[in-house]
Amino acid sequence: MTIVNEMTFQLQTDGKRCLYEQIYEHIRREIREGKLLAGEKLPSTRFLAEYLQVARSTVDYAYGQLLSEGYIEARPCKGYFVCPIEELLVLEETVVLPERTSGEEEFGERNFAVDFSPYDIDMSGFPFGVWKKITRNILTCANSDLFARGEAQGDDELRRTIARYLHSSRGVNCRPEQVIVGAGNDYLLLLLEKILGQHVRIAMENPTYTRSYRMFRSFAYRIETVDMDEFGMRADKLEQANVRVAYVMPSHQFPTGTVMPIGRRMELLKWADGAPDRYLIEDDYDSEFRFRGKPIPALQASDRHGRVIYMGTFSKAIAPAIRIGFMVLPDALLERYRREYAFYSCTVSRIDQSILNEFIRDGYFERHLNKMRKIYQGKHELLLECLQSMRESFRISGENAGLHLLLTSKRKILERELVRKAAENGVRVYGLSESMVEESPESTTVLLGFGGLSGEEIQRGAELLKKAWQL
Amino acid sequence: MTIVNEMTFQLQTDGKRCLYEQIYEHIRREIREGKLLAGEKLPSTRFLAEYLQVARSTVDYAYGQLLSEGYIEARPCKGYFVCPIEELLVLEETVVLPERTSGEEEFGERNFAVDFSPYDIDMSGFPFGVWKKITRNILTCANSDLFARGEAQGDDELRRTIARYLHSSRGVNCRPEQVIVGAGNDYLLLLLEKILGQHVRIAMENPTYTRSYRMFRSFAYRIETVDMDEFGMRADKLEQANVRVAYVMPSHQFPTGTVMPIGRRMELLKWADGAPDRYLIEDDYDSEFRFRGKPIPALQASDRHGRVIYMGTFSKAIAPAIRIGFMVLPDALLERYRREYAFYSCTVSRIDQSILNEFIRDGYFERHLNKMRKIYQGKHELLLECLQSMRESFRISGENAGLHLLLTSKRKILERELVRKAAENGVRVYGLSESMVEESPESTTVLLGFGGLSGEEIQRGAELLKKAWQL
Repeated sequence: MTIVNEMTFQLQTDGKRCLYEQIYEHIRREIREGKLLAGEKLPSTRFLAEYLQVARSTVDYAYGQLLSEGYIEARPCKGYFVCPIEELLVLEETVVLPERTSGEEEFGERNFAVDFSPYDIDMSGFPFGVWKKITRNILTCANSDLFARGEAQGDDELRRTIARYLHSSRGVNCRPEQVIVGAGNDYLLLLLEKILGQHVRIAMENPTYTRSYRMFRSFAYRIETVDMDEFGMRADKLEQANVRVAYVMPSHQFPTGTVMPIGRRMELLKWADGAPDRYLIEDDYDSEFRFRGKPIPALQASDRHGRVIYMGTFSKAIAPAIRIGFMVLPDALLERYRREYAFYSCTVSRIDQSILNEFIRDGYFERHLNKMRKIYQGKHELLLECLQSMRESFRISGENAGLHLLLTSKRKILERELVRKAAENGVRVYGLSESMVEESPESTTVLLGFGGLSGEEIQRGAELLKKAWQL
Repeated sequence: MTIVNEMTFQLQTDGKRCLYEQIYEHIRREIREGKLLAGEKLPSTRFLAEYLQVARSTVDYAYGQLLSEGYIEARPCKGYFVCPIEELLVLEETVVLPERTSGEEEFGERNFAVDFSPYDIDMSGFPFGVWKKITRNILTCANSDLFARGEAQGDDELRRTIARYLHSSRGVNCRPEQVIVGAGNDYLLLLLEKILGQHVRIAMENPTYTRSYRMFRSFAYRIETVDMDEFGMRADKLEQANVRVAYVMPSHQFPTGTVMPIGRRMELLKWADGAPDRYLIEDDYDSEFRFRGKPIPALQASDRHGRVIYMGTFSKAIAPAIRIGFMVLPDALLERYRREYAFYSCTVSRIDQSILNEFIRDGYFERHLNKMRKIYQGKHELLLECLQSMRESFRISGENAGLHLLLTSKRKILERELVRKAAENGVRVYGLSESMVEESPESTTVLLGFGGLSGEEIQRGAELLKKAWQL
């Protein structure tokens, strides 16, 4: 009986560690280190209790735990024996916590004085106060219901609010049942992949929104790029592309800012009607930020045969941390979703859904959008003004592109040059080719985002660019 | 010039509706209804402005919007013309909002006096006060950083806290880099599908957790059920099953409550080591709720060759609305994730991550677990006591099953009968076959969950069952 004989069994009786745990751990260690071998008999609980001067129930408890974990077994009328355990000796108790692997991505190592990122937004206008107030109120009134599991599609109230908002602001026609709430666009695309099925051939414009492109590529979708003209994706080329789904951003295409006119929209819808199970994914990303005139209605608003999957997110219009997006499914896909995937749990907490619901329902969202639209419009105009003197050397476009402008060199200077020279002068600009998803002749266009910059930064950035490009 | 001639063009000048919008909408409607035909010339802005007695800029603005949306085009020196638009006539402006489709699932239509659901938890013990306090504090101190986009894997701080918690409570050995935070287990399985790849052959026990089964089935995984014995999944059968991945719940199997002993664990790990790219998914769901002895350590704690994918969730231990789960990836899969899928945005808001982080870090989680363990232990013992007199007719098992017990009829009464008779007496019990994922001989076992019931309900439910089953 090793345990007793070895006399290494020193119980700490200072009350810091529970006695049964010490017994359990000692025996477990002996077994794992091969000091107690398979088949060996353990002392009886009565014997060990007397030997260690502890209550018998303490030893019972320790043996019970060892039994549960399978280190020992009880043979009726014979006592406790060590179990044979395959390869147990390889186990070590030491915790392996290696250092953080080096070679992690280090983005933005270089410090830019001004970063014209087309992806940044202005968070200074975010109504933190209102958001906090709503959160406080919701938590104060919260009953345990709010902490219970909600509907898989998202809570009914939020879906009603979204449907109402989409109808009034974007002309989208849908019932709340068609709305699926999810934790961001990436998740919703993952869900959509399930609904649409595998091996889908999908058409995208080139350049396009590379985030969606990478998602589709990670789905092993076959992606066909379809030529664009001034109106967006060419319907005749789409017809030839032999695809089942087309991904478009009709309200303003990223990054070109092209607004798809109603005529082209009808052509795309006609294409979708031309064969069963053809769909248009309308990414209405960022459509709130149009600075001239009314918002362009959604493509879904013109869809009469259930061919458009409408997607949107609150991450850009409210805050990136608000991981709430939604999609509106046409009936045929809704049915497929309900039949096959409606058991996937909702990915947004009910509390967050309630906060967003009140934020929209009580008009704060619209007020926030109006405010941000003005702020962004101001920045848009300021940037245009600052770039005025560059018009001799650059064509400036993208007035409908949202939070960035496009500058195309009239002197055919390659984007690589433009980006490099800007960087040398402390300014980050973005080559159009970053949004290219197919080999293309090298562009002479760069993107200048202004969403996240202050007025001073815009002015300073423009000055530095003039210096960099010697204008 | 239809617009002018038709004289239906009544501007409302009461200031309620903006003038340019009225002009825009009128012309748009005329085009959509086919009253203005493709190629038709519109009046000049100057003419229309005079005619309508509005500023010329108002008409400019309306025409601008129509141009943007592609209803009209400008021909240089000629004026504005209606665009040819394919199939435009099919469009109608009316909003179609059909009634909610009937035939929606109607679960729980029958009103049960007592529902022994094995899935419900007790929310009355949830520390709402603490949760609210932490939320308030976080929002008060929040800077705009917290509303910015976070790390794709989840915020570093939360991942550190989870790694520390898992090590101390479950013996899991991992670096924070291995932890992926996501909005619930379903999402994490979707992500894992991407990492593991398609067409995986996966082994599951039978009965098993049907939620995971349905997820795997929706992935088009080939599922092989592998026989269990008293120690859980049989390793010899697993070897024969020709699978690449096995899904197990070693700490307590759902629904049987089987605790996998260390010997069987080592056999499974040996199986996983036997070929490249073999993995064990350890679902450690609900492992916090063990009422006798210490928690059983995780299988991952014995994994020395990076073969275990460890998954857990806070939905059950904290609240179902907290949509936060996590998985711990072994290095080979972590590398694949980082290379291919690390661009998928995190599905949990940074605010929610911060709240959870503080809740765990400051010891509230452990306190909550200790409290709930006592509450559940009390219910567990009460239910056992109430069922005492049934032991002649039923074998009662599942003392390690967590929040339910299993009753197996000694008189071979089929579960269907047991469920039906219980229902007739107002009590809902759950047949074991609900957890079966393969045709099996009809069981004589029912599950009685107690997590969500009060003491009185447990007593009343047991009384009603005795009456129902004539004991």
